[in-house]
Amino acid sequence: MTQYNHQTAPTRFVDAAGIRFAYRRFGKSGGVPLVLNMHFIGTMDHWDPLVTDGLAATREVILFDNAGISSSNGEVPASVEEMAANAAAFIKALGLTQVDVLGFSLGGFVAQALAIADPSLIHRLIVVGTGPRGGDGMATLTPEAQAVFGATYANPDELWLGVFFTPSAASQASGRAFLRRIRLRAEDRDQEVGAKVAPAQIHAIGKWGAPRADAFDYLREIDHPTLVINGSNDVIIYTVNSFILQQNLPKAQLILYPDSNHGSQYQYLALFVADVTRFLDAEVPFPIEKDTDHG
Amino acid sequence: MTQYNHQTAPTRFVDAAGIRFAYRRFGKSGGVPLVLNMHFIGTMDHWDPLVTDGLAATREVILFDNAGISSSNGEVPASVEEMAANAAAFIKALGLTQVDVLGFSLGGFVAQALAIADPSLIHRLIVVGTGPRGGDGMATLTPEAQAVFGATYANPDELWLGVFFTPSAASQASGRAFLRRIRLRAEDRDQEVGAKVAPAQIHAIGKWGAPRADAFDYLREIDHPTLVINGSNDVIIYTVNSFILQQNLPKAQLILYPDSNHGSQYQYLALFVADVTRFLDAEVPFPIEKDTDHG
Repeated sequence: MTQYNHQTAPTRFVDAAGIRFAYRRFGKSGGVPLVLNMHFIGTMDHWDPLVTDGLAATREVILFDNAGISSSNGEVPASVEEMAANAAAFIKALGLTQVDVLGFSLGGFVAQALAIADPSLIHRLIVVGTGPRGGDGMATLTPEAQAVFGATYANPDELWLGVFFTPSAASQASGRAFLRRIRLRAEDRDQEVGAKVAPAQIHAIGKWGAPRADAFDYLREIDHPTLVINGSNDVIIYTVNSFILQQNLPKAQLILYPDSNHGSQYQYLALFVADVTRFLDAEVPFPIEKDTDHG
Repeated sequence: MTQYNHQTAPTRFVDAAGIRFAYRRFGKSGGVPLVLNMHFIGTMDHWDPLVTDGLAATREVILFDNAGISSSNGEVPASVEEMAANAAAFIKALGLTQVDVLGFSLGGFVAQALAIADPSLIHRLIVVGTGPRGGDGMATLTPEAQAVFGATYANPDELWLGVFFTPSAASQASGRAFLRRIRLRAEDRDQEVGAKVAPAQIHAIGKWGAPRADAFDYLREIDHPTLVINGSNDVIIYTVNSFILQQNLPKAQLILYPDSNHGSQYQYLALFVADVTRFLDAEVPFPIEKDTDHG
């Protein structure tokens, strides 16, 4: 049964771990739901409705604000691992025992930490525009990220043109279309995050990104089939980090789209929705040919 | 119209550039044909029939032996660029004005050189298990390649288990199925290559792989939509070289499959055929969402 869509799904609330979590559920119910984990200073209203509704055509999609974000109360915790614990508490509070998890950027860190802390809760993983603990250029915001987040914009939404899209005319045009789409939901919107969110998230991001010995060994513990997706020119979390993820995760496929930055999924919507849907729908995510009866 | 398949297509001959080229054509005619360029010491009979027939379900597939290989006469030339000139002469001798080109390993070098020398001859490119001029570890055969090509095998075909597949049980099982499939064609087979082929190809491969300043700049000239595919653990042409290709080609998508070596396309046949077919069939290979009328 398909119920609601990105624009019509009401914001609901569930209590867990001392937090009142705001969330929205919509799409085709009956299978494994897909829980989306949002990026730095993002709310439920920063997801592209063409991505969420595209995915919701074949499965139930769940958006939520993690602790301390917008319509959820509580505080942004000091580490990605605590954010993951809150995400797990939220998922279980919905009565769900297994979900697919998509994480974008900071949300991709949370997805990895969740997969390690609570492996049986997760069916398959999709990590987009993200990187490993101690990844390349991840100890601080990249110079490009500092510049784009530090600038002022006539329309604050225009920040995302530099974060998610490349300077090319085609990418910027897709970025302007994205900005229009995230404003289409007319009622029951999330408020922008408060002033305490960015510093708290930057603190957690810095701890995740800090260099350390054998930084990538932990990825060997993530045994879930994983799809790693990014743009060719991610200046927020350098694209090489997606390559590093794929090289160290035991069961991961990598897809890098051309001429795209941190938000490649908002630029190549049709490819992204098709790639993720194929990965999640497949009985065996990476089927190997062993049959000898062909001819 | 669909005519012949991998097993039934007769070996034909066409003369060009002083060479009598052996080739086979099969599949669904009427669109842009797909020309396949083979790897080191490979003949037409080293293509996996599940790959070629899988692709031939939606387009015409053309296999050929380049100059000096098996059923084609002439000599293996001293450079990849001369191999590409021979490939171009072969394609034009068939009366074709534009083709899609797939190149595997050494065949991927030839595909790149062909795209630079004769850009209008090519519609779209697929490069599999390959790398750029002056790529990482490409100045000589890798230590792993030297070991696997230098060993002796009870059945000579078993060489390919170490070249194309990882040590995992699943990958080796798919490798044994691959070895059975390439022996299914019963009649009109190519002979194995002669003793002069390997040294001549290694000479050309060494020149292509030699380090040089600004090694990857030439990739900016290849403006064709390109799909770059490899396994996670290519020990023959290290996987990072596929990442380098994607990072430097203007219009390239990268796909890396999990737990796979140089021959990932023979292991994940269904994914590979679907990925290549989607890329070649798309009116726009990397469609960007610009429409504002959704909501």
